[in-house]
Amino acid sequence: VNEIKLPFKTIEWKNGKLTLIDQRLLPGRVQYVDYGNYRDVIVAVKNLTVRGAPAIGVAAAYAMVLASAELIMTGNADYMAKMEAASREIGAARPTAVNLRWAVDRIRKIIGDNSASTPRKIHELIEAEAIEIETEDKQLCLAMGSHGAELIDGNDGIMTHCNAGALATAGIGTALGVIYTAAFSDKKIKVYSTETRPLDQGRRLTTWELAASGLDVTLLCDNMAASLMSSGAIDKVIVGADRIAANGDTANKIGTYNIAIIADRFGIPFYVAAPYSTIDLNTADGTEIPIEFRDTNEIADVTGYAGIRGNISIYAPAFDVTPNSLITGYITDKGVIKSADIKELFAA
Amino acid sequence: VNEIKLPFKTIEWKNGKLTLIDQRLLPGRVQYVDYGNYRDVIVAVKNLTVRGAPAIGVAAAYAMVLASAELIMTGNADYMAKMEAASREIGAARPTAVNLRWAVDRIRKIIGDNSASTPRKIHELIEAEAIEIETEDKQLCLAMGSHGAELIDGNDGIMTHCNAGALATAGIGTALGVIYTAAFSDKKIKVYSTETRPLDQGRRLTTWELAASGLDVTLLCDNMAASLMSSGAIDKVIVGADRIAANGDTANKIGTYNIAIIADRFGIPFYVAAPYSTIDLNTADGTEIPIEFRDTNEIADVTGYAGIRGNISIYAPAFDVTPNSLITGYITDKGVIKSADIKELFAA
Repeated sequence: VNEIKLPFKTIEWKNGKLTLIDQRLLPGRVQYVDYGNYRDVIVAVKNLTVRGAPAIGVAAAYAMVLASAELIMTGNADYMAKMEAASREIGAARPTAVNLRWAVDRIRKIIGDNSASTPRKIHELIEAEAIEIETEDKQLCLAMGSHGAELIDGNDGIMTHCNAGALATAGIGTALGVIYTAAFSDKKIKVYSTETRPLDQGRRLTTWELAASGLDVTLLCDNMAASLMSSGAIDKVIVGADRIAANGDTANKIGTYNIAIIADRFGIPFYVAAPYSTIDLNTADGTEIPIEFRDTNEIADVTGYAGIRGNISIYAPAFDVTPNSLITGYITDKGVIKSADIKELFAA
Repeated sequence: VNEIKLPFKTIEWKNGKLTLIDQRLLPGRVQYVDYGNYRDVIVAVKNLTVRGAPAIGVAAAYAMVLASAELIMTGNADYMAKMEAASREIGAARPTAVNLRWAVDRIRKIIGDNSASTPRKIHELIEAEAIEIETEDKQLCLAMGSHGAELIDGNDGIMTHCNAGALATAGIGTALGVIYTAAFSDKKIKVYSTETRPLDQGRRLTTWELAASGLDVTLLCDNMAASLMSSGAIDKVIVGADRIAANGDTANKIGTYNIAIIADRFGIPFYVAAPYSTIDLNTADGTEIPIEFRDTNEIADVTGYAGIRGNISIYAPAFDVTPNSLITGYITDKGVIKSADIKELFAA
């Protein structure tokens, strides 16, 4: 495997400042923004400046560090209660991705375990923990890439959905991490990225990051999956995950379920690539995963339609839940778990 | 059944002029454009000012009449050869819809059958034939609506794709004609329209024409079909068709095949509504239907992407082919044909 060097950084912590690539400006412009205030990071999470479950988790951890820094700087005596309040604010920034609360809870645990220490000492410990979360995320991506790449053959056509890439993590990505690892070990692969309506993360982010990194990528509209699969161009599907229930049902960007059903019909293997922090043992199955519905204006503003007498509504879920039965396997940092084995493995 | 009155006209022939509603400006603006030159009608067909297989057929018939009028007005002696040349130009405006060439051929037959007559006499006959094609289209829509509405139950949730509506025909539409007929006979139904990327005919046209006509419609992105169907909201799918092969394989707007596969998984009946002129007995099955690929800029312009080193391609088919096996039935002007019966019926 050659070293995987990508020409951009999604998230960086340096001198007490968080730097994020502004994903809303891609693919037209590469711009980095510095954050010194945790409230601004919450806004960045909400408005999708940073998105992707693992990246949100890392950003949330650093947001906790920024909240702590602010309290220490202002000499606030109410450190524990204020940090608890900040953790609630940060944890509520988006509802579906489990990594967000998982990361916040790791920081909270450090605070709780060291409640006898001074705020300054706690601050040092949580900054170290946030850096550890980021480092782990990078390592998890490399591990997933390494396990997943073994599933990829030379000349494979691989379809992916949304952006489960380096832009969604602190490392090389989950689904795209597998693709990068295969491509940087000189497997000639063709990647097919859906547009991913309504926010077009596939068109804006996945095609950009793959092509910026030198890969060969083809864009398609979400509704072209059956046409493309019927043509024989697709050998595998690899997507990311926002939450995996204990039974393997997987919440991921809206449209994933469509693709899984279509891949199943054509007998094309369908893989979910995600780190262990995505698996939520507190969620028994997909029916328990809360689905975020977003602003319908992200799909269309129907107020300007001429001469309307009836009623126009808009269905705007941000995620859907693909049942375990449609998933061939889970590419995790611990290895590839076959569909049928997941319950057993995570019960242990 | 109450009389179905819609608040717009897709296509109108009056005093030797063709009037089209400019579908590129919907849903924001309702504007009618007059055409006195057949070449402008070809442009209108190509640039989607008018679209929908039956509407294109009617427009093409009137384009032939306009070509004839021009020849007569300029006293051209070479009438037969020039009309043959015009028929080739008009017939080539778009490649997939069979109605276009079917309508042109009906006009050509009148010309051929009356080659001993004067151009002026032939002109009268072909204008009458074009009007007959339009009248037939309206009647076919009403007949399809009447047969199809029997399949619709009160409180049905009906998904449709693209625009197989009044905007796609000279009448009340094919798939939407069924929906209008059910709604105007006081069945309370909810219609779900996909966005229909990349040209958004569902978002721009179907939601507009249904809501302008007083119906209740919900817009969804193409990739939300599985999510919505899994919620139980959809009882039936009804779509149009650009060409139906003799074995029932059906070419329709890209994305139809996606929806058919997903509907099949959820056990939701999937109907194709189309007039007999859509059935092409010269096409044995779906593999023989030519698929138009459109300008990739309709999906995205990737030339402005920052820092690209690799290659970005775009897959841009305008249609896909849904196999007969996924289609519950065909709603035609002759009645509803069950999936298994189509070969038999059209062999007769």
